[in-house]
Amino acid sequence: MQRFLDLADFERAEVKDLLGLASRLQQNPDPHALAGKVLGLLFMNPSLRTLASFQSGMMRLGGSVFVITPGQGTWQLETRNGAVMNGAAAEHIKEAVPVMASYCDALGVRMFAEGKNLQADINETGFKMIADLCDKPLINLESAVNHPCQALADWYTMDELNVPERGKFVISWVNHPRALPLAVPSATVQMAAMRGMDVVVLRPEGYALPDAIMEKARVAARASGGNVTETTDRPAALKGAQVVYAKEWGSPQHYGDAEAETRLREDLVDWCVKDSWFKHTAPDCHLMHCLPVRRNVAVDDEVLDSSRSVVIREAFNRMVVQMAVLHRLLRNK
Amino acid sequence: MQRFLDLADFERAEVKDLLGLASRLQQNPDPHALAGKVLGLLFMNPSLRTLASFQSGMMRLGGSVFVITPGQGTWQLETRNGAVMNGAAAEHIKEAVPVMASYCDALGVRMFAEGKNLQADINETGFKMIADLCDKPLINLESAVNHPCQALADWYTMDELNVPERGKFVISWVNHPRALPLAVPSATVQMAAMRGMDVVVLRPEGYALPDAIMEKARVAARASGGNVTETTDRPAALKGAQVVYAKEWGSPQHYGDAEAETRLREDLVDWCVKDSWFKHTAPDCHLMHCLPVRRNVAVDDEVLDSSRSVVIREAFNRMVVQMAVLHRLLRNK
Amino acid sequence: MQRFLDLADFERAEVKDLLGLASRLQQNPDPHALAGKVLGLLFMNPSLRTLASFQSGMMRLGGSVFVITPGQGTWQLETRNGAVMNGAAAEHIKEAVPVMASYCDALGVRMFAEGKNLQADINETGFKMIADLCDKPLINLESAVNHPCQALADWYTMDELNVPERGKFVISWVNHPRALPLAVPSATVQMAAMRGMDVVVLRPEGYALPDAIMEKARVAARASGGNVTETTDRPAALKGAQVVYAKEWGSPQHYGDAEAETRLREDLVDWCVKDSWFKHTAPDCHLMHCLPVRRNVAVDDEVLDSSRSVVIREAFNRMVVQMAVLHRLLRNK
Repeated sequence: MQRFLDLADFERAEVKDLLGLASRLQQNPDPHALAGKVLGLLFMNPSLRTLASFQSGMMRLGGSVFVITPGQGTWQLETRNGAVMNGAAAEHIKEAVPVMASYCDALGVRMFAEGKNLQADINETGFKMIADLCDKPLINLESAVNHPCQALADWYTMDELNVPERGKFVISWVNHPRALPLAVPSATVQMAAMRGMDVVVLRPEGYALPDAIMEKARVAARASGGNVTETTDRPAALKGAQVVYAKEWGSPQHYGDAEAETRLREDLVDWCVKDSWFKHTAPDCHLMHCLPVRRNVAVDDEVLDSSRSVVIREAFNRMVVQMAVLHRLLRNK
Repeated sequence: MQRFLDLADFERAEVKDLLGLASRLQQNPDPHALAGKVLGLLFMNPSLRTLASFQSGMMRLGGSVFVITPGQGTWQLETRNGAVMNGAAAEHIKEAVPVMASYCDALGVRMFAEGKNLQADINETGFKMIADLCDKPLINLESAVNHPCQALADWYTMDELNVPERGKFVISWVNHPRALPLAVPSATVQMAAMRGMDVVVLRPEGYALPDAIMEKARVAARASGGNVTETTDRPAALKGAQVVYAKEWGSPQHYGDAEAETRLREDLVDWCVKDSWFKHTAPDCHLMHCLPVRRNVAVDDEVLDSSRSVVIREAFNRMVVQMAVLHRLLRNK
Repeated sequence: MQRFLDLADFERAEVKDLLGLASRLQQNPDPHALAGKVLGLLFMNPSLRTLASFQSGMMRLGGSVFVITPGQGTWQLETRNGAVMNGAAAEHIKEAVPVMASYCDALGVRMFAEGKNLQADINETGFKMIADLCDKPLINLESAVNHPCQALADWYTMDELNVPERGKFVISWVNHPRALPLAVPSATVQMAAMRGMDVVVLRPEGYALPDAIMEKARVAARASGGNVTETTDRPAALKGAQVVYAKEWGSPQHYGDAEAETRLREDLVDWCVKDSWFKHTAPDCHLMHCLPVRRNVAVDDEVLDSSRSVVIREAFNRMVVQMAVLHRLLRNK
């Protein structure tokens, strides 16, 4: 493995093999595996889980980590090709990324969607620029429309919880004060489809995921024996669900138009997961969320504080699966 | 030892035992003691000594560290129970703390007083919420009314300097541009009382420490054979003192009322430690301060730059005693 | 070696010896050389290369690192002697530096020029205060008029590229949205002079380097058999050059006068390195720059993206030579 950028880059069997390595490392730690190796982390956007879990995971394998956060002790970075750099950004990623890569054995990069042009974000224009500039093993710490580390952790979590591979997986849009990126919903639908699940995307009008993302997931579902549908009908979607995965995202219809977005979501305050959502799900249906979650806006306290919620376990499993990714990228190299 | 939150949670003999471990580790380093262990540090407020000394100390024991600073590359954190999270904070401590705890073997947390409601701060409302959310060994890096790592370092420093256990210890209020928390004065009075000293709290009218804090220290003094009194009479307080411990704190009478505070301290500019304060102290009387100190506002250059000042030694000893705390919390676990 | 503050503190042979150690460590890593050692880094100003390369280099030698960035999770620091500290800065470097030094085995400090008083900056008033406060091995991570780590890396890079020691080295002023410090041009001229090169400082009227800096370089050139001249004549300067080193700096004539500076550089937009600059240089002439570089303001894309540019190699070599500095300062101590 040279790069970990998108679950879709791997066969289903390869992902399951990686999850197997994660499980073995969890049971039999390999604390000197990456001795002498250095992981660089570049955060163009904020982080808690990714920042802490990659550091802890790398150190638990005997390796070391440095973190660069532009604008926080480091220059702001320019990303536009051909820019005349007389503004706030003192350095271009064309220098910053190869330089950072030269100091480390693997580089992790977080670069959220720009949120202006939907097609550019679906094409991963920004992250691809960075990927092209990096000649070391590269890890996607969340790009415009992907978050493979989160997706891998969620797959691992469902395996741990014995959620059937053919189980019903409902990813539901939930509310948020502003439009969030498509990275986690896209990666989650892809992951659940690859796992072979009966995936339902539940969302209000205006929040259908882009065709390119849905079609990519359907391709994965056809290969795995799974299924991907979408609906605005909450009762039908939730019926018999084994998992409700709550997630906030911005309207693709009003991409980059904050004002139109705000008007649209004003009437959607009941898209906050409550106990009542689980009336007709499977009795042991789990509530999943990638965190951070806005309590009582996206998911009610009564659900997050109940035994249905497995959000802390998902977050812990970020470290578990990322250790497998690091091991695979760096061991014996 | 499972937690290090308050010197008052320990018997005097237990504290002395911990100081003995610190001394042994200082003379005979144990550089592989915590190999493979990870310390997480959560800073809700700024730090220099705590941030640097915990990292250095943990690494000197062979362990690793990650740091999370909400608002500095990490989401701002919500602390209110039941909050409808549609404001600036993207994540609640109910998720952030268990997640961070799941990545580390011990967690250190700094959370200053809110400074609005005196009783809530005396009750450690905020820090207790965090403590209840953490299932790993926990270290108090300064809470609303406590700073046990500072207190332990100060005790160690006095032992090093052969300050008699029955010696006269004067903690004096000093000026500052604004009201500071009660954490260090509270922890210091408690420490000196537990050490068995003749403790005098010297402060102007309006700055008496809250009854709950004074009474807690008096209980410790009764057990140790020490004594705790308070006064506004500077000459009487300083007479024969072996230690003058300068510290800034806000008026408990005007808690949360910055305007009234400002008026009160306008007339208190002479509460800045000068050479003349040592005219009637013991000749080798030491000046102690937890740092950071505002020169020529709280303590004059002439004192800080003299041999009386042991503030750098106190700061160095933060690392020394914290290595003992980490060793006790994590060794063979 | 006790300190690494200025190339001029060393004999030419000592620098070459240090470069030899860097080369040996690059070929034969010594991954446990600094086990148990702790490097402290104090950044009063932003950084990317220095921050990442010192961490990575120290960790690759088996050591550990902590970073303190005042104003970013740590108090702002006061530097003025005798200040009455009732402003924004909560701590004085008189405490902060000895405290940090007490936690580490070597301390690196970055403190840019204040940019108000030219003579004070040439005298390194600020950095010297810090140096006087530090009793541990000290590394200059860029001071008012010096950047010895960059200079050492650039020397190493020219050796790697087989640039003749007697080759023609042109350091050219280039444009920038605002006046930058004299640290890199000063250190670069010094380095090239010590290396024995034919050094030409090419700059527009108003940007002559201060006499003290030119004279210091001339002293080094006399010892090494090199030569240092300055000119405003670009064609003459570039003719036959083996290296064009592009660098931005503020006008010493208008030091601290941002408005006059701005007027002066308005007419200097053609001081941006283009392909055409290399018409009469040596055919394999290299473009060097310390980074960060503002593309299409200081150097055109067409040059930075060509094979002439060795800026990424220079940056990588920061880590290589700094590992030699750390090894020399800390090994067997």
